[in-house]
Amino acid sequence: MGNDIKSLSAAVEERIIQIIKENELQPGDRLDTEMELARRLGVGRGTVREAIKGLVSRNILVVRQGSGTFLAPRPGVADDPLGLTFAKQDRRLALDLLDVRLILEPEIAAMAADRATEQEIRRLEGQCAKVERFIRGERPYQQEDVEFHRCIALASHNQVVGTLVPVIHSSASLNIDLTRNELKENTLRCHRELVNAIRRHDPQGARYTMILHLAENRRYIQAPEE
Amino acid sequence: MGNDIKSLSAAVEERIIQIIKENELQPGDRLDTEMELARRLGVGRGTVREAIKGLVSRNILVVRQGSGTFLAPRPGVADDPLGLTFAKQDRRLALDLLDVRLILEPEIAAMAADRATEQEIRRLEGQCAKVERFIRGERPYQQEDVEFHRCIALASHNQVVGTLVPVIHSSASLNIDLTRNELKENTLRCHRELVNAIRRHDPQGARYTMILHLAENRRYIQAPEE
Repeated sequence: MGNDIKSLSAAVEERIIQIIKENELQPGDRLDTEMELARRLGVGRGTVREAIKGLVSRNILVVRQGSGTFLAPRPGVADDPLGLTFAKQDRRLALDLLDVRLILEPEIAAMAADRATEQEIRRLEGQCAKVERFIRGERPYQQEDVEFHRCIALASHNQVVGTLVPVIHSSASLNIDLTRNELKENTLRCHRELVNAIRRHDPQGARYTMILHLAENRRYIQAPEE
Repeated sequence: MGNDIKSLSAAVEERIIQIIKENELQPGDRLDTEMELARRLGVGRGTVREAIKGLVSRNILVVRQGSGTFLAPRPGVADDPLGLTFAKQDRRLALDLLDVRLILEPEIAAMAADRATEQEIRRLEGQCAKVERFIRGERPYQQEDVEFHRCIALASHNQVVGTLVPVIHSSASLNIDLTRNELKENTLRCHRELVNAIRRHDPQGARYTMILHLAENRRYIQAPEE
């Protein structure tokens, strides 16, 4: 496959990942300096610098000039993990993304209703109120909406969906605006009902409220003018 | 966020992506040379080289020394898009991944049964036979198995799941081997039945065969010794 350029610093990238894992570094933690890493790995500083750039591109590290190199907030989660930058940005892509959400998120909501802790429920209530404030104040609320759905995913205690849900949501935001006026009332009502269902540990309630919520979005994408 | 290093070549990376999209380059297509890109973008060759390295790290480009720079086979799809390299590799992660597959793949199989073309069905039959040959020949068949499930995802005609399914499968392969002897007979039988259900355009048949197939894997992960 001719990965000549890639292979040069790739080995050092993998060794740095190994060090991160061995030391159980957490997001935001500081790495050794370039010089320390070079000594430890027995390679030149140029090679380490190269590898760090690679790890920055892969969203594993962030470099703050003058203060050092740190583990990224969500290490290794790509900006556009599904490569949808290269898909045609049209209504069909928006529908395909929503169909995936319609498969996944009702079940995730049901799992969250089953497993959410008191603390997770409080966090979800707070995030629900925040989205509401943004909507009432006519501020752009898409990011807060993604965070609301991520809170539900985290409450499902399935560590894969906690990452997967924001990935699918932000792919969706590439191509269609689901925060239009027509959908605001639906969002306000469904979010509140979702929180209630999860609070009373009612999986069926959570599942079907999520279906209602997303199906309304789906109808809007299919026929935005009606 | 201190993206000082990232910002240096990031702008050029985005402009190269723009060029790829404008020219509707396909996977495997050749890019302009470093020199041509530098002239076109009005930047130095060093900056272009830097940006190309960044795009190689992001799996968007591949460089073949001596023959040029090409669009990657699956442009922009990250090696570990969910950042699971940093999750604890244990049985719980394997279960979490399988639970996501259990939510997604039965519905994908049903969509495939609904929408698969003759050509897609023939491709699926071919891949099914290939997995069978690998199993009978006692060869490692995990990659061929992923490809079988990807063929089903592609036949669903949902362009998101075509990328999502291999992503989840290869994350799974990080941590547990689902191609053990105990599961081979299940795999052989279920794969064949899946192909049959999709061939006769039977969504319910495809859905429940997929559930059977994955639920057997799930049982194995939960209690491998029984």
